[in-house]
Amino acid sequence: MQIKFGILGYGFMGHIHTDMIKSLEGAEVVAICDNDPVKLIDAPEGIVQYTNMDNLFADENVNTILVSISNHVHKEAVIKAARAGKHILCEKPAALSVIEFDEMMDVVNECGVKFSVHQQRRWDKDFRISKEVYDKQLVGDIFTIQSKLYGFNGNMHDWHVYPEFGGGMLYDWGVHLIDQMLWMVDSKIKTVYADLRNVINEKVDDYFKIIIKFENNIIAEIELGTYFLGNKEKWFEKHWFIGGNKGSMYLDGFEPVGQIIRTSQLLENVSGKTTMTAAGPTRSFGPPPEGRIIVEDLPEVNVKHSMYFDNFIKAINDEEEFIVKFEEVRRVLRFMEAVRESAKTGRTVDFE
Amino acid sequence: MQIKFGILGYGFMGHIHTDMIKSLEGAEVVAICDNDPVKLIDAPEGIVQYTNMDNLFADENVNTILVSISNHVHKEAVIKAARAGKHILCEKPAALSVIEFDEMMDVVNECGVKFSVHQQRRWDKDFRISKEVYDKQLVGDIFTIQSKLYGFNGNMHDWHVYPEFGGGMLYDWGVHLIDQMLWMVDSKIKTVYADLRNVINEKVDDYFKIIIKFENNIIAEIELGTYFLGNKEKWFEKHWFIGGNKGSMYLDGFEPVGQIIRTSQLLENVSGKTTMTAAGPTRSFGPPPEGRIIVEDLPEVNVKHSMYFDNFIKAINDEEEFIVKFEEVRRVLRFMEAVRESAKTGRTVDFE
Repeated sequence: MQIKFGILGYGFMGHIHTDMIKSLEGAEVVAICDNDPVKLIDAPEGIVQYTNMDNLFADENVNTILVSISNHVHKEAVIKAARAGKHILCEKPAALSVIEFDEMMDVVNECGVKFSVHQQRRWDKDFRISKEVYDKQLVGDIFTIQSKLYGFNGNMHDWHVYPEFGGGMLYDWGVHLIDQMLWMVDSKIKTVYADLRNVINEKVDDYFKIIIKFENNIIAEIELGTYFLGNKEKWFEKHWFIGGNKGSMYLDGFEPVGQIIRTSQLLENVSGKTTMTAAGPTRSFGPPPEGRIIVEDLPEVNVKHSMYFDNFIKAINDEEEFIVKFEEVRRVLRFMEAVRESAKTGRTVDFE
Repeated sequence: MQIKFGILGYGFMGHIHTDMIKSLEGAEVVAICDNDPVKLIDAPEGIVQYTNMDNLFADENVNTILVSISNHVHKEAVIKAARAGKHILCEKPAALSVIEFDEMMDVVNECGVKFSVHQQRRWDKDFRISKEVYDKQLVGDIFTIQSKLYGFNGNMHDWHVYPEFGGGMLYDWGVHLIDQMLWMVDSKIKTVYADLRNVINEKVDDYFKIIIKFENNIIAEIELGTYFLGNKEKWFEKHWFIGGNKGSMYLDGFEPVGQIIRTSQLLENVSGKTTMTAAGPTRSFGPPPEGRIIVEDLPEVNVKHSMYFDNFIKAINDEEEFIVKFEEVRRVLRFMEAVRESAKTGRTVDFE
């Protein structure tokens, strides 16, 4: 079946999606809807336009709705689209709460339409290299995984500055970083600990740090700061660190630069008096001797965001399962609620 | 009063202390004791030697004992030294537990001798620069302080590999990093969360991550890994990051390199479609435009470890208070017990 998308919401992501779909086989955009007519001015020619979502859902030429309106109206849109018998590709976060999501999924299941969420950052190169290191145990038994993202402006865009629209960085980027981590680490979670705050923005969160203790004993950390300043190469991008008992991996950047690092020799007990550091005596820390550090290239991966759509199109046609499954989406939403609770109390929240 | 030190324990730190005291006015080493006669072979000439601590304590020429034996015998040594009427400078950690410490302090107070602990890393340059940024609010209201230390070998030295001697990195370096943080941040602590584990070493901890939520709303992080590998300049040394709402400070190294970073413009809400990153659309992260980032030099500080001894000598002579106070030492020991408890349960521990 040719997927005939109706794009609901022609803002930043609506434009991105329309451009992406142009490049795909098996899918096309046949209608675009935005309640702000000004936004439709640069819509591609020859595509039906609507300013009311009900009219989009009534369009019989559309068989799939791509929901890219602001977060607080995802629920209304998904329920209406399902009732109109359309398949659904929904922007992240699918909903503002687990309760909302369950209401949406009840209708989706009742109507027998297909549903997935745009967690396209599962196909980010930095993430997939890290996942490869994880999957193939390239640094041995892993004890820590750290995923960090820093920005310089404290800025939010458009409706993301409004709490009532589902703004803030936890909803916007947190949902990606959490989804990546939970998809990578194949283990139940014991506890969640989080700090979440408004550093520059008055109304919405723009910094968070999340610590996840998994049942498999890995401790994972996710940190995002929109006003977290440095002066090093690729600082204002993505950072990963994976530490294991056979080495470490680090990488920086969306187009990542990094290495796997091992040592030529592991010392467990060194006797006697050794070097002084600038700050006084320490024998455990300081520059390694020549030849002690061994570096290897990162594994290569070949991914791009269009692969999300390739899977979506095949899943709609029953040729594959959705890679982004609704149970996973629900778990991430539950997790985000635990993050908010932990940040509020300053204490860990038991999870699973 | 001239301080006449008896050095108890002539291992790594015993040597360091003896060298240090040679350079000081108002203090000298008059006796050295080690129960291993081999260790005394390179002791300076003309200084009385003992292999039994009781004989050291009985030496009337000694008025102050410097306890630099392994952690598990600090208690015995401090109690005996106090009963012999000697003032005491004890290596860190003063004791293995708060109970031990309280027993020691009861005797110290009863005997009316003076007591301090060798937390000389309060005079580390990297720390003091960070403390200056904190004290003078050079990055505005601070939300996060991160103190990290990485090594390449997983190695421990001498008796530090034995749990029964009080080995492991939490006792060895944790006590410094915690002492620095708790001395810097003038606030009660709400909760402690910690991971503590043996990555390379079988018997003792060689990695920890500690998150402290202070009542003043600062979240602080301490992370130490002895097998936490990177390939960047000064990686295997100390790292600080302080984030505030008027800028950030980072520094790397015991002889630190770093900057204070600010932005020329703070955006809180940006409309419209902007740049694509290598990994697809994001408007919040990516390289800053030319001129957006402003860098400033770190404040200068002039400190060295001998300042610890300068204060110790003056405090013994009632000319100053001890900068390292026993209440602070006790709080750090209590804190380390909370760290162990949190690491065991995977949950936060309420503190203060």
